[in-house]
Amino acid sequence: MQNKNIPTVRWTGEELYILDQTLIPITVKEIKLSNEEEAYNAIKELKVRGAPAIGVAAAYSLLINLKNKTNLNTNEFINFVEERAKYLNSSRPTAVNLSYALNRMINTIKDKKDKSSLELYNILEEEAKKIHSEDIDICQKIGEYGSELLKDNCGILTHCNAGRLAVSGIGTALAPMYIAHQKGIKIRVYADETRPLLQGARLTSFELQEAGIDVTLICDNMAAFIMSKGLVDLVIVGCDRVAENGDAANKIGTMGVAILAKYFNIPFYIACPSTTFDLNTKTGNDIVIEERDAKEVINFSGVQTAPLDMKVRNPAFDVTPNELITGFITEKGIIKPPYIENLKTLLTK
Amino acid sequence: MQNKNIPTVRWTGEELYILDQTLIPITVKEIKLSNEEEAYNAIKELKVRGAPAIGVAAAYSLLINLKNKTNLNTNEFINFVEERAKYLNSSRPTAVNLSYALNRMINTIKDKKDKSSLELYNILEEEAKKIHSEDIDICQKIGEYGSELLKDNCGILTHCNAGRLAVSGIGTALAPMYIAHQKGIKIRVYADETRPLLQGARLTSFELQEAGIDVTLICDNMAAFIMSKGLVDLVIVGCDRVAENGDAANKIGTMGVAILAKYFNIPFYIACPSTTFDLNTKTGNDIVIEERDAKEVINFSGVQTAPLDMKVRNPAFDVTPNELITGFITEKGIIKPPYIENLKTLLTK
Repeated sequence: MQNKNIPTVRWTGEELYILDQTLIPITVKEIKLSNEEEAYNAIKELKVRGAPAIGVAAAYSLLINLKNKTNLNTNEFINFVEERAKYLNSSRPTAVNLSYALNRMINTIKDKKDKSSLELYNILEEEAKKIHSEDIDICQKIGEYGSELLKDNCGILTHCNAGRLAVSGIGTALAPMYIAHQKGIKIRVYADETRPLLQGARLTSFELQEAGIDVTLICDNMAAFIMSKGLVDLVIVGCDRVAENGDAANKIGTMGVAILAKYFNIPFYIACPSTTFDLNTKTGNDIVIEERDAKEVINFSGVQTAPLDMKVRNPAFDVTPNELITGFITEKGIIKPPYIENLKTLLTK
Repeated sequence: MQNKNIPTVRWTGEELYILDQTLIPITVKEIKLSNEEEAYNAIKELKVRGAPAIGVAAAYSLLINLKNKTNLNTNEFINFVEERAKYLNSSRPTAVNLSYALNRMINTIKDKKDKSSLELYNILEEEAKKIHSEDIDICQKIGEYGSELLKDNCGILTHCNAGRLAVSGIGTALAPMYIAHQKGIKIRVYADETRPLLQGARLTSFELQEAGIDVTLICDNMAAFIMSKGLVDLVIVGCDRVAENGDAANKIGTMGVAILAKYFNIPFYIACPSTTFDLNTKTGNDIVIEERDAKEVINFSGVQTAPLDMKVRNPAFDVTPNELITGFITEKGIIKPPYIENLKTLLTK
């Protein structure tokens, strides 16, 4: 594979580049986001995707051409940044990381009315870099805690892509696999292809194969078959938002995998930074599920897959009930039920 | 839609035509099967598919150009037909209907050494037509029994295609929906797209839409979401082979749907002719599962979906354990557990 070192998100100090994830594995190419509309569309169209990567990209997106706005007075500058944050935050509704990163950016400047706009700009840039580097550290820690669950010759099933392409570091769900592989533990990974946008086929397969990890691609509807053959010792997936009670929103199909895992008595883990826990959301019922365009289902890369006027449902996420989740692998350790108590304890650590 | 009356399989008395199911919904076109290799390949490549349709097509395939062989003596003729049957039977391993139809054809002639080859040819042609017309009657009866399960405004989820395209009549799994629709019962159908070959998207969506039935296409991994929203009152799928204990092989993904249905307390029915019950197969473990080419998973209609050298699993079927099956809808009525006893009783009716 060429260009293996292209990072998911890259801020040059002046310009913002992302690795266009919609083109992988056919093309591995960076694109420049030149203004806030391009940033909004890149998030909406999943050119940059994966909850943590969206957060990092959104933080940097606030900075695009923002230096040119430092001629505004402080109040005007803060208003401008707040408006831009509000706009970017409306690009996708489900992942909490997007609003987390944007709120964190805004909070660093909103009370600093005694500073100049240029000073505020510098504060924002430092904060974005901090969010970015923290993301890398968090992945490493998730990988270390999670790798302790992986024994030699074990089989792991994952859904969608929560790997290096979804975040800035080595990923969340895939981080334990990278660390185990580094330690010389032999693992077998089964990657669900993850319709409709095939993040498992295009991204997870691609990045694990590139890393030399034994990965087998399956269609989503083959997971039960693979589990029934005793090939899966545990499931690890990523996550977009966790409610106070442990209900967890992730890519559509995750709940189904969790139900299958329960049926076959296979542990089901979610790997995510602790910023994914949203104690303001009481249960999964309160998580807004994005419904995407029917075209994604009836059309694949220009190839028609069904009658063009078909009625289609296309929810982008589902919510896995807490009772199906064996544990959350976070940068602060592995959290087990009861979640209402243990998530609170985690977040006050 | 054009050409809506093209039958799945059509024998003119001289020539065999099938509706090429790999081209639907883009193109609705009959193709002629001119020799046994073309018939073998049409079955292997799923140009004709669906367990009952394969049986009917295979029975007629024995007749292709066979009149030209009636200059053989009776023994030679029988040997020729037996060899052709053996060859056709090796095209796909899982559906019992293929070997059922071919055995039934052979059995009508194998002891009739006192007949001429031309007489045997005529017997074979009559038997193939009988298998075909029985198939149509059976579908009608399955539809009538099954439609009693469908209440006004109910939601039904189905997987793959066991409709008119899969058989000669109105289908097996879809038959109850056609009959209910005729009776004026309002139903909502959710069709799993059924990767990798998208029989749900291409065929079930197409034929139900054509019939004016309310059908919504979903990706396979959305079934749990749709069930969790209370939109599914029952599941009905088709079947390729049922073991003596009720374990049932059907399109890959069926077992997963059955596990989800169990989790959500949704009845899960299999619709099939009684010829699908194979008492020579003790349990699901004894059913041979066809593993198909990796290309089907990493390539869709010429569009690459994953790295080309990906390791892939591509089982075409899975086996749903009997404990997950609420009942079998057959032409002789609906069979409930315990299956070992009740299937035997059914087959001696």
